[in-house]
Amino acid sequence: VNTSLGNRPIGVFDSGIGGLTVVAALRRLLPTENILYLGDTARVPYGSKSPATVQRYSREISRFLTAANAKLLVVACNTASAMAVPLLRKEFDVPVVGVVEPGAAAAVAATRNHRIGVMATRATVRSGAYENAMLALRNDVTVTSHACPLLVPLIEEGWVEDVITDQVITRYLAPLRQANIDTLVLGCTHYPLLAAAVARAAGDHIALVDSARNCAEAVKTTLQNNHLMTPADTDGRLEVVLTDPADAFLVTAAKSLNLEIDNLRIEHLTET
Amino acid sequence: VNTSLGNRPIGVFDSGIGGLTVVAALRRLLPTENILYLGDTARVPYGSKSPATVQRYSREISRFLTAANAKLLVVACNTASAMAVPLLRKEFDVPVVGVVEPGAAAAVAATRNHRIGVMATRATVRSGAYENAMLALRNDVTVTSHACPLLVPLIEEGWVEDVITDQVITRYLAPLRQANIDTLVLGCTHYPLLAAAVARAAGDHIALVDSARNCAEAVKTTLQNNHLMTPADTDGRLEVVLTDPADAFLVTAAKSLNLEIDNLRIEHLTET
Repeated sequence: VNTSLGNRPIGVFDSGIGGLTVVAALRRLLPTENILYLGDTARVPYGSKSPATVQRYSREISRFLTAANAKLLVVACNTASAMAVPLLRKEFDVPVVGVVEPGAAAAVAATRNHRIGVMATRATVRSGAYENAMLALRNDVTVTSHACPLLVPLIEEGWVEDVITDQVITRYLAPLRQANIDTLVLGCTHYPLLAAAVARAAGDHIALVDSARNCAEAVKTTLQNNHLMTPADTDGRLEVVLTDPADAFLVTAAKSLNLEIDNLRIEHLTET
Repeated sequence: VNTSLGNRPIGVFDSGIGGLTVVAALRRLLPTENILYLGDTARVPYGSKSPATVQRYSREISRFLTAANAKLLVVACNTASAMAVPLLRKEFDVPVVGVVEPGAAAAVAATRNHRIGVMATRATVRSGAYENAMLALRNDVTVTSHACPLLVPLIEEGWVEDVITDQVITRYLAPLRQANIDTLVLGCTHYPLLAAAVARAAGDHIALVDSARNCAEAVKTTLQNNHLMTPADTDGRLEVVLTDPADAFLVTAAKSLNLEIDNLRIEHLTET
């Protein structure tokens, strides 16, 4: 595997492009770190697939990233975080940070009435990962999760500020509002791109928890604890590898996140 | 490869479950034929992916189906039909029938004002396959295509008779209505499940062309021309193979299509 990164990079992956919201948060918090991002656009999305398939894909990508000398793996995909983080921690020697645990911790810290809502993919909701992570931290919270499979396609269609999207969000929020939540986890790395629309529909009394920002903070702590911070005073580079080239959404997402991509290439992963 | 089918089956594939609309049409037209269906649910959808990736997936699946003794391949996916049918015809010894050519022929036969619209995935629209197939039949037609990436997720969410879906359809139809079409191709095998809603939005003066039914008729002709019809007087069997098990939509689709599945199994295809 060739990589033009000098210092060992942080390896970040997602089923597609959504994980760039985590990359943007890492850039702000850890500007000198090199980042190698893999978006599995040939097999996107993961959110409708089974645990066995998502685990297999996550293992293949982690092999790719560690072969490229990644010093830490960031699972910047809620579905893969929900299904594969324990397995990756067992199988790989580098630290593994997902988005579910940091998001769950932030939500438990934020709630006052102990009623937390989660919007996520079908697979993440089915896994119960957010609920389990929150209950492990505090057993008096009530978690209501709702699968929102149309939000990613709406974002990828570019209908971010749109009357149709607002209606879909309102419909998805209804059972969460009925559960009287005061805290809402955006449990998919695409969703921060809809944060303004969700905030509008949810109203002032519901606090939004963005898993991207909380994940970036967990990465910083993990790097510090493991003495893995890069001692550089120049900005880190961002390399993006996609498994399929046909993603017009990359340009939109990078622009809206204000991300500069230093190198983009397409690679075909080997299935195991 | 094990298969419980006696007579050589017709091999049918799609990126997921949508191709069952073609299976339902085949069942009605050719009730004694055995059918082996592969839905590539581990890598669904194809409609947002590149030609190279869709061709690779189509080749892998065709190897699987011909290894199971398929006597004819039906590409029951518009995206794969648009991108891979010529390649499959070159590489495999059995006849290959796609959905694009029969749909294009039916549309050209139906139009009176020579203005035809196509609703399809991004990849199918980008390929220009419908336009090319129609112009090859008749050079005085004007084809207006529009990518409709939200329709499959809306169908899979079960929002088939729904005010939100009606608004999305109306928005997608606007440029086609403006082009004054009198014939509209439903260029994705999922879309027949939305035929009633599309017909309502399009109005009486636009004729809908369902690629599933026209494909089934092309299969019948091809079997007859190649002396491949099964001389049976009992009903054929339907075997379904999925590459990922997590598809609740299978049950919904099979029920709404009135399809009986004799055998369902999960297999993990080998990537090449």
